[in-house]
Amino acid sequence: MTTAAGVTDPPTAVEVLERCRTLVRPALGAAVERLHPWVGEMAAYAFGWCEVGGAPAEAPGGKGVRQALAVLGAEAAGAPAATGVPAAVAVELVHAFSLLHDDIMDGDATRRCRPAVWRAYGTGPAVLAGDGLFALAVETLAAAPGGGTAVRRLSAALGDLVTGQADDLLFASRPWRGPQRVRPGEYRAMAERKTGALLGCALALGAHLGGAPEALTSGLDRVGRRLGVAFQIVDDVLGIWGDPAVTGKPVHGDLREGKKTFPVLCALDGPGPAARRLAALLEAGGDAAEAAAAVRQAGGRRAALAAARTLVVAAVDELDALEPATGAAAELRSLPGYLTDREL
Amino acid sequence: MTTAAGVTDPPTAVEVLERCRTLVRPALGAAVERLHPWVGEMAAYAFGWCEVGGAPAEAPGGKGVRQALAVLGAEAAGAPAATGVPAAVAVELVHAFSLLHDDIMDGDATRRCRPAVWRAYGTGPAVLAGDGLFALAVETLAAAPGGGTAVRRLSAALGDLVTGQADDLLFASRPWRGPQRVRPGEYRAMAERKTGALLGCALALGAHLGGAPEALTSGLDRVGRRLGVAFQIVDDVLGIWGDPAVTGKPVHGDLREGKKTFPVLCALDGPGPAARRLAALLEAGGDAAEAAAAVRQAGGRRAALAAARTLVVAAVDELDALEPATGAAAELRSLPGYLTDREL
Repeated sequence: MTTAAGVTDPPTAVEVLERCRTLVRPALGAAVERLHPWVGEMAAYAFGWCEVGGAPAEAPGGKGVRQALAVLGAEAAGAPAATGVPAAVAVELVHAFSLLHDDIMDGDATRRCRPAVWRAYGTGPAVLAGDGLFALAVETLAAAPGGGTAVRRLSAALGDLVTGQADDLLFASRPWRGPQRVRPGEYRAMAERKTGALLGCALALGAHLGGAPEALTSGLDRVGRRLGVAFQIVDDVLGIWGDPAVTGKPVHGDLREGKKTFPVLCALDGPGPAARRLAALLEAGGDAAEAAAAVRQAGGRRAALAAARTLVVAAVDELDALEPATGAAAELRSLPGYLTDREL
Repeated sequence: MTTAAGVTDPPTAVEVLERCRTLVRPALGAAVERLHPWVGEMAAYAFGWCEVGGAPAEAPGGKGVRQALAVLGAEAAGAPAATGVPAAVAVELVHAFSLLHDDIMDGDATRRCRPAVWRAYGTGPAVLAGDGLFALAVETLAAAPGGGTAVRRLSAALGDLVTGQADDLLFASRPWRGPQRVRPGEYRAMAERKTGALLGCALALGAHLGGAPEALTSGLDRVGRRLGVAFQIVDDVLGIWGDPAVTGKPVHGDLREGKKTFPVLCALDGPGPAARRLAALLEAGGDAAEAAAAVRQAGGRRAALAAARTLVVAAVDELDALEPATGAAAELRSLPGYLTDREL
């Protein structure tokens, strides 16, 4: 944006995301077209492009953070935005795959205010559609110039995704207190794999395709991982206190389902009576609104938001130290605040 | 084998499979060790290496055809057997992944005489374990020397697997007769993707890692695809008339579940009264033993076995024309008969 005085304002995150979405959309659409028609319809439904049955739709399709990071990764390496497009397509496909399968595993019936794919099409077809997206992601990246080695990075991130999801599923059977309880540090390690790995991979793949030296590629990977953990923590805060109209999820849903989210784990990790009262409430499966108040009282909300802020500051510092190409630097810097200040 | 007279007999398929299994097992085990422990246990259970809970077991783990094809593909290119091992590991991991997810989609509760992974561990965990195997397969191949370009071939085969499975699932809702019925040719196209693609890919990846020229690699891919269709057709025959003690599946199981298998489709494709009687029986969900007899009477069993034999002859002819390295040629030639003459 250029003001009347001719001074260029830094771009807003919304502008950055929109530019990258517009750039990537044709290639993403062309990739999905290559799927089996039935699998492709499920994929298009997941992206918000169609209704069940195939009628065109414009449903909310996610913020497109991962595709933007891939494009900006290429630009950070001084390459044209288009160089990052195959990476952008690959990470959006992987993200869609992971949402499809995670919704099955977690029993989440709603995604972006619509029935999840497994509810709309059945569990078996949703498993298959996820597999198709997964294969297509690898195929898309492998076919890109320089994609052969990039696939190693993508497959490592995929492994992290699975490991993080496994840890998250296993957290469910752990107790709320005592030595076997889930500590906030364990949660952060899980979130780095489950959410951070793909954000880091998006930046790194874009940089790699853009011809970045290994130090920049690895550095951007670390930046993305930190942002991913911050993003997940904020998502957890929104899962308890977010506006259902904005999050598309029921109020206090995560608490009602007894999910071990970061604010709850921080609250339980405290020494005071508020933590003990919260643990008793959660063990008894008590009222979710009361539990939410207890998490806040025990400092869980404050600790979670502080952790997210610290991660964002560290990510931005690391980003600046990497000295990415000028235009990309300003655009990249617009994203962390957007991701972590959402509707809070 | 060398006889008393000093003449070397060609190796038997059982010997070939055993040699390749012994060669590949350490690398396959090491790959599975890299998975999250819980995901790794599910994978080890699927391979027959452990019970639920992790206690060691020696349950039947499949014939290991795909790993053998990968090793022989490398040898066909004149490379040492070990060159094909990363390809062998990758295709066995992909095969295990596809069985895990297909059993969920098809609702198959039993696999190799044991509860399927989704029955033993739950649907969500089985989805996750499949994803972990999938990611590990790509990672293993991508990390191999020359693996970067090989991944393109693997991901194309993965896409075929998904497309074939989608077609197979959609066959279920098609009628038994009339213009919308599934024709044997459609079935063969489905089976080439669902079963043939990975067998062809196994040979081709081994050859690729072994430094084969493109003509040999592509030729071996075609050989494997034909074998895969033949193998699937024979599997279908066994699914109706096979000995449950050998197949590990209930007698007439495929007929009771109303599966559109090749012998049934061949029988229904005939013009005579036997085809019409069979269609009526299947539409009414009649007795499975009676349906099996009707399929045989309408020539379905004979036609299926003839198609399998023709495919095997074509595959062996094509194999000979490719002139693979001598030792590998004899071993490769041992496999088609073994795969298609199983317990018939």
